[in-house]
Amino acid sequence: MADAQTIYGIHAVRAVLKGGAERIIGAWLDRQRKDVKLQTIQRNLEQVGVRVEYTDKKALEKLSKNGNHQGVLLTVRLPSERTEEALKKAIKERTEEAFYLVLDQVTDPHNLGACLRTALAAGVQGVIVPKDNACRLNATVCKVASGAAEILPVYRVTNLSRILKWLKNEGVWLTGAASEAPTDVFDAQLTGSVAIVMGAEGKGLRQLTQQHCDQLVKIPMSDEVESLNVSVATGIIFYEVLRQNRAAKLSSHT
Amino acid sequence: MADAQTIYGIHAVRAVLKGGAERIIGAWLDRQRKDVKLQTIQRNLEQVGVRVEYTDKKALEKLSKNGNHQGVLLTVRLPSERTEEALKKAIKERTEEAFYLVLDQVTDPHNLGACLRTALAAGVQGVIVPKDNACRLNATVCKVASGAAEILPVYRVTNLSRILKWLKNEGVWLTGAASEAPTDVFDAQLTGSVAIVMGAEGKGLRQLTQQHCDQLVKIPMSDEVESLNVSVATGIIFYEVLRQNRAAKLSSHT
Repeated sequence: MADAQTIYGIHAVRAVLKGGAERIIGAWLDRQRKDVKLQTIQRNLEQVGVRVEYTDKKALEKLSKNGNHQGVLLTVRLPSERTEEALKKAIKERTEEAFYLVLDQVTDPHNLGACLRTALAAGVQGVIVPKDNACRLNATVCKVASGAAEILPVYRVTNLSRILKWLKNEGVWLTGAASEAPTDVFDAQLTGSVAIVMGAEGKGLRQLTQQHCDQLVKIPMSDEVESLNVSVATGIIFYEVLRQNRAAKLSSHT
Repeated sequence: MADAQTIYGIHAVRAVLKGGAERIIGAWLDRQRKDVKLQTIQRNLEQVGVRVEYTDKKALEKLSKNGNHQGVLLTVRLPSERTEEALKKAIKERTEEAFYLVLDQVTDPHNLGACLRTALAAGVQGVIVPKDNACRLNATVCKVASGAAEILPVYRVTNLSRILKWLKNEGVWLTGAASEAPTDVFDAQLTGSVAIVMGAEGKGLRQLTQQHCDQLVKIPMSDEVESLNVSVATGIIFYEVLRQNRAAKLSSHT
């Protein structure tokens, strides 16, 4: 099935149960394994109405293509992408400072998946991607994201420029990463409601996207390196956001 | 050839010319392309005594397996790993604060390559890996490292515990990353001579390795995520080192 994927291993299965149980099509458990973790998963699967089938280690190895299945495997429909309207609703109704990632023309599924995983870890609330010239949520993305694609909303928008303008009007501060930016990320103001705008590796942000940003920042880098991997760069900027927010909170308490 | 690899594209070829020209076995250029960048590369290759062979686009596509060769392709011997003695010499004779990465049991070549790329970007001076249970510098590592494996010294040591002790005696502060650490990386002291000690994804640092560290730090993370990719985690910690060093320098100037 083109829009289905295989998910295995205790952590990944738990993530699906938590973030998208309605997408589960089938479930297989190793009948030989009796540990508590698997029993809990079995109960949880039954609670959400999934019929569990029992099989053996060999079959699970085959289904998972020798992956680290830990005795459990699901087939699930791919998580669905959200709409522009859902994004606007989420932003309008936010109860905390916005923290979003915008990916401009990231076409590589490994990079998208790695960015989703990093974004969820850092507490990002959603990822915004354009309709054209961008990778879709496919099985590779979901696998690399290690469960993050099941939880983190991915908003697919028709016109990225228009949405960036709209976000600005809603008080979201847009910070774009660009290797030629004058400001180091450490010197930039990253507190409050923010969206971090990242381009594709090698190509960077489009001119028009850059123009919509409130500020452009660069990650200082040795001359010997052309660029960082986009998920690494994204992680560094996200955690600088986190650090600044923490520092701001601490200083407001003293 | 098992210990040789194919390198292509202008940036990667330049990195080899700069960091390991003596490892070049063969060089192919697209005879149709006359741009200045390729002409410079051709001159540089000839200067280091490499005989350039001219071929066509089709042949380069085949040799690079449809990679983005940009008209140039080399075969090179894999970069050689350095010894424990070389590491000790480098540390003893250092003229600036030490900044090293220790990878404990990272066996995945993609992760090792991504860590090398990130380390070089952040200005790390060398990467220390144990002899056993660790990935070697192979063609996959070099490819993912995007040229960093050609420049950054990788030291292979027999006994990691012994080297960690030795580093400590030499005044290098050992910071290990562990998800169960009590201290957030932002609250840790990371200035001066440091080595960042990272374990394998999922498994983390071995007990013995942890015990040798001067401090253990964690990267704060959403509960919904089990771990960050090791190169992303490494990048976040490296750039916190950089940030703290910059802040320390700025405050010493005022």
